[in-house]
Amino acid sequence: MTDRLERMPFAQLLGIELAAADEGRAVGRLPLTEQLTSNPSSGLAHGAVPYALADTVAGAAVSTLNETVTPTVDMRIDYLRPAVGNALEAEAEVVRNGSTVATVDVIVRTETGDVVATARGTFKTSGASGETPWESGAGVGGAE
Amino acid sequence: MTDRLERMPFAQLLGIELAAADEGRAVGRLPLTEQLTSNPSSGLAHGAVPYALADTVAGAAVSTLNETVTPTVDMRIDYLRPAVGNALEAEAEVVRNGSTVATVDVIVRTETGDVVATARGTFKTSGASGETPWESGAGVGGAE
Amino acid sequence: MTDRLERMPFAQLLGIELAAADEGRAVGRLPLTEQLTSNPSSGLAHGAVPYALADTVAGAAVSTLNETVTPTVDMRIDYLRPAVGNALEAEAEVVRNGSTVATVDVIVRTETGDVVATARGTFKTSGASGETPWESGAGVGGAE
Amino acid sequence: MTDRLERMPFAQLLGIELAAADEGRAVGRLPLTEQLTSNPSSGLAHGAVPYALADTVAGAAVSTLNETVTPTVDMRIDYLRPAVGNALEAEAEVVRNGSTVATVDVIVRTETGDVVATARGTFKTSGASGETPWESGAGVGGAE
Repeated sequence: MTDRLERMPFAQLLGIELAAADEGRAVGRLPLTEQLTSNPSSGLAHGAVPYALADTVAGAAVSTLNETVTPTVDMRIDYLRPAVGNALEAEAEVVRNGSTVATVDVIVRTETGDVVATARGTFKTSGASGETPWESGAGVGGAE
Repeated sequence: MTDRLERMPFAQLLGIELAAADEGRAVGRLPLTEQLTSNPSSGLAHGAVPYALADTVAGAAVSTLNETVTPTVDMRIDYLRPAVGNALEAEAEVVRNGSTVATVDVIVRTETGDVVATARGTFKTSGASGETPWESGAGVGGAE
Repeated sequence: MTDRLERMPFAQLLGIELAAADEGRAVGRLPLTEQLTSNPSSGLAHGAVPYALADTVAGAAVSTLNETVTPTVDMRIDYLRPAVGNALEAEAEVVRNGSTVATVDVIVRTETGDVVATARGTFKTSGASGETPWESGAGVGGAE
Repeated sequence: MTDRLERMPFAQLLGIELAAADEGRAVGRLPLTEQLTSNPSSGLAHGAVPYALADTVAGAAVSTLNETVTPTVDMRIDYLRPAVGNALEAEAEVVRNGSTVATVDVIVRTETGDVVATARGTFKTSGASGETPWESGAGVGGAE
């Protein structure tokens, strides 16, 4: 799992780290740097930064329970507090793993534990191969 | 508006370009490079890439109608087709601009016109200053 | 299709009418009565009333393209204007019909054409039978 | 609060009961009857039934923290298990109460504790009066 993230260029570009992924849960981390901000002076991460972490960690969580690739079908993110500080941390949990789709909850926090955002998404758990052009390994993130 | 995107480090990191923004509408573009992919061999962009484009262009659209900063409150994205090809293009339209929140629709397409994803979000249109630490310019993207 | 709605007690309770359903599209109507309001003096329909119409019409639209039952996986609704007047009208369109899930867009309007709400949902298109207790006919609305 | 629900015709039509509402939390209950089903033989509640309970209880929760009416801006519901049994129970919690909008999480369960659905919504916390035609009491549910 960690290996796969290392082969995911976009995760590498942002600096997303996968700390753990097992039994429907995954934990990730993303150090915040100036290039991830919306505004250098405020230090606030762009809204797509916590989203990228949430989508990636959610995909990792659902992948632990399914042998196939598990593309994102849809995701909603709610922004609760500014994404600031040294790093963001995210925990994802599969709350339903059905034969065709899974539902995953994610909480994104600052290093000091403040909840920055919550996300909830639907991921495919079957049927990806044969109907998509990227059945070999896209896995985490992306459309079916 | 275009100037502001040039001062937004994360938009620069990804390569997001704002082509137009006026009267509640905005159009943006994002050339796809290998570093934006989930898997180099498939060429598929990571799911957070169309999201980043959608959130940024939506924020630009709502900013055209409001003098204050307009942080994202929440956004949902639905993935319809693989995000592949030379570039992604996004059009955002404010479908309701209320005194406190706006609703914005976004369509993300490939260069050949295939719809990659649709997104819909709620953005603040007032009250950002005084309750947040980043009232000066965060503007597009990010939490309130 | 219309027959099925007539056998759906909740649609009957509210008064939902299915005007047309074919080739991934469906149109429905719901006369507004006092018992559907949040507040009798305002005449405003409860937020769950446009939702019920949207979910039902969306389910009908996706059912036109799939032989199996098509339960709702998730749905988001955005409220744009007050749901008032003599009746609500909804149009649903399947924007992607995949082998396992479909994405459906819905617009809910007043009789005078004002957009009351937009909704977007993910519906199952396979796999419902065998993993659920209601494979025979639940069809429109409800979870997988 | 309980009084207000008693004056809400749609809540009465469905049979929604508000058990408690205080300090950003609310608990509600909805006995399931045949008229709330999608299919009488399955006993499965229509998808809009848990939504109606969730929206109503969420509105009650956010109302405990704000003096103004608090219309729903948007809500997403995810269906996890069949809505069956004698009754549905819902718990709502305001996870962020900002000066203009609040974010509310809801869990809907069967009487035996199985999670039927989760919902997350954005509600207005200011600005409703003066820009809407129903400032007097619509309160729970409905658009701004």
